[in-house]
Amino acid sequence: RSFATASSAPLKIGLIPADGIGREVIPAAQRVLESLSNGPRFDFVHLDAGFEYFQKTGTALPQVTIDTLKNECQGALFGAVSSPSHKVAGYSSPIVALRKHLDLYANVRPVASVASPAFPNQKVLDMLIIRENTECLYIKSERQEVDPATGLKVAYADRKISEYASKRAGTMAFNMALTRQQLREQKPLENRIWKHKPRVTIVHKSNVMSVTDGLWRETVRAVKEDNPEKYGGVDMEEQLVDSMVYRMFREPEAFDVVVAPNLYGDIISDGAAALVGSLGVVPSANVGDNFVMGEPVHGSAPDIAGKGISNPIAAIRSAGLLLEHLGHTQHALKMYDAVDAVLADGSILTPDLGGKSTTNEVVEAVLKHL
Amino acid sequence: RSFATASSAPLKIGLIPADGIGREVIPAAQRVLESLSNGPRFDFVHLDAGFEYFQKTGTALPQVTIDTLKNECQGALFGAVSSPSHKVAGYSSPIVALRKHLDLYANVRPVASVASPAFPNQKVLDMLIIRENTECLYIKSERQEVDPATGLKVAYADRKISEYASKRAGTMAFNMALTRQQLREQKPLENRIWKHKPRVTIVHKSNVMSVTDGLWRETVRAVKEDNPEKYGGVDMEEQLVDSMVYRMFREPEAFDVVVAPNLYGDIISDGAAALVGSLGVVPSANVGDNFVMGEPVHGSAPDIAGKGISNPIAAIRSAGLLLEHLGHTQHALKMYDAVDAVLADGSILTPDLGGKSTTNEVVEAVLKHL
Ligand SMILES: CC(C)[C@H](C(=O)O)[C@@H](O)C(=O)O
Ligand SMILES: CC(C)[C@H](C(=O)O)[C@@H](O)C(=O)O
Repeated sequence: RSFATASSAPLKIGLIPADGIGREVIPAAQRVLESLSNGPRFDFVHLDAGFEYFQKTGTALPQVTIDTLKNECQGALFGAVSSPSHKVAGYSSPIVALRKHLDLYANVRPVASVASPAFPNQKVLDMLIIRENTECLYIKSERQEVDPATGLKVAYADRKISEYASKRAGTMAFNMALTRQQLREQKPLENRIWKHKPRVTIVHKSNVMSVTDGLWRETVRAVKEDNPEKYGGVDMEEQLVDSMVYRMFREPEAFDVVVAPNLYGDIISDGAAALVGSLGVVPSANVGDNFVMGEPVHGSAPDIAGKGISNPIAAIRSAGLLLEHLGHTQHALKMYDAVDAVLADGSILTPDLGGKSTTNEVVEAVLKHL
Repeated sequence: RSFATASSAPLKIGLIPADGIGREVIPAAQRVLESLSNGPRFDFVHLDAGFEYFQKTGTALPQVTIDTLKNECQGALFGAVSSPSHKVAGYSSPIVALRKHLDLYANVRPVASVASPAFPNQKVLDMLIIRENTECLYIKSERQEVDPATGLKVAYADRKISEYASKRAGTMAFNMALTRQQLREQKPLENRIWKHKPRVTIVHKSNVMSVTDGLWRETVRAVKEDNPEKYGGVDMEEQLVDSMVYRMFREPEAFDVVVAPNLYGDIISDGAAALVGSLGVVPSANVGDNFVMGEPVHGSAPDIAGKGISNPIAAIRSAGLLLEHLGHTQHALKMYDAVDAVLADGSILTPDLGGKSTTNEVVEAVLKHL
């Protein structure tokens, strides 16, 4: 990775709130970043994208947004994008396009719970989902034909799985398994949730897609098999995607790092979010070799947008991931710890977590623990 | 549907235990079918298939199995098939092939819980997943190339979504919503879990796959829109597949009938199984216009095969579904009620449900309630 780990030049970060509650949670995350003591200096630039922007201008992702990110920024924070409920001619998801334009090949999605009186029945887990972020069915290569015999429509989509992309995602998974182990060693033993050898679980469905998921599986396995010195200490297991969802709900504590092709990763990470109380606490980072984009996993939540009660935690954690993957790990850890302290306390929570607090009150609570 | 609803000629049913615990649960289900008083007469025929059969003979699905089912049987019960953990040349899943050969276009998967002292924390739900069963990525049209520039492998799979298959699956969903409503009306109000208008939830990911999932979505919607007299009383809603998994875990009681393309349906039904205690209780029926094949959703469970402790409930319920979809609804209901009584009692359960009983003891308990 070609980032400077911590230079004194300011970090130029694009802020793309996009739709709905994105406009509330991105400023919240920005405030927390700006409040880090001795943290990096930031140079924030506000950029447009989203469905609402599309409705006003006819484009969901203006070229100036792409160019500014590519040419001027080291990273970005993306809010959330509304999906039109009906097919809208000319509209296409800006987040999927950004991942592609910036070659953000791994979507890093930590899903962890914090022991708290507010969630007495919550399962204890600390998993990290690495979602391949550039291909699978997300290449959007689709076509529709009409069967001449019947006059009925038939549509096809191409699912692409390449050795190149699978290897990048797999390498990220094994590297993160090692990084997590190192970070855990800094924590007192009794506070560690994951107490085993680091583990990578490879998700696939090669019992049906023997060629594409077969290639995925073999390529990710080869990351470890070809590099036993580096990854020999990491356990490797496999799980068919259907069983993965089943097992994740039955014994989420059995997973450390989980690596999956794009679509499975999308589904699994939303599923995992259900285990930690709310999509409102689950962050992600879209990571490439030269750029990182933090992005809460939740959507634009039109039902609560504008009410000031959206949960800023996913966005704040995403800003932490942004810092972590730009090399500012210690500042990221401070942000995670501050958020964890608010959750562990359990008295200042937004309604999605059963609380009565506002976005701003949660931000204040996080700042107090920073 | 072209079945006679209940003639006096015996029903010819193929039994295909296949691998692992399939060999234990299929005989269990057969015993319950044979014990129905005033039930239909059966003529069972034992047929081979599976991974173990492949290892012995080089074929996973012998032609005689296909021919016997096609030419002689009205229905079948399939056990479970082992998936080889490594790619095995020449092997391909017999269950996927059978669905195709027999044109079993809808996979009907009821997932319901029963109030029981044995499962005090179990969520209350009563949903029915209709999984399109013939296309999507399951058409197994895959190819691998080598990128000449890099020498690296690239694989592609075709995902097919047709108007024809989507309409058949969608029609099954709306019809089942009406059928379920009728059956509920026979139950006393306080025992009904689902107390609302019948509802069909359409699962898709048309925010990314606007052409294929767009066609799926429009076609299933049209089933109701084109037939307001018949389906006007059924509510229709949509859910993106990632949100579907999230919502299913957060509020499973919100779903009645859920209809999904093949792969999403596979994943969702395993996920739903985690909500009702065990894959060992979740049945399915592969339904076509001229044939029905019952199939427990669980796998071959090599870890417990041969120990006599596999849960027969999924297979017994699958045999009930077989009868239901062959037109013997009242006998099917008797079987469901007997199983529900055993679960509600909660004292005779196999280990997957936290009990200590054997397969045979559970079968005896079911027979006692029949
Ligand atoms: C909005 C949508 C295109 C997106 C995806 O499927 O990747 C979202 O669900 C996510 O997980 O970031
Ligand atoms: C064994 C496998 C091919 C099958 C499927 O994916 O359909 C199974 O998971 C199922 O759900 O019946």
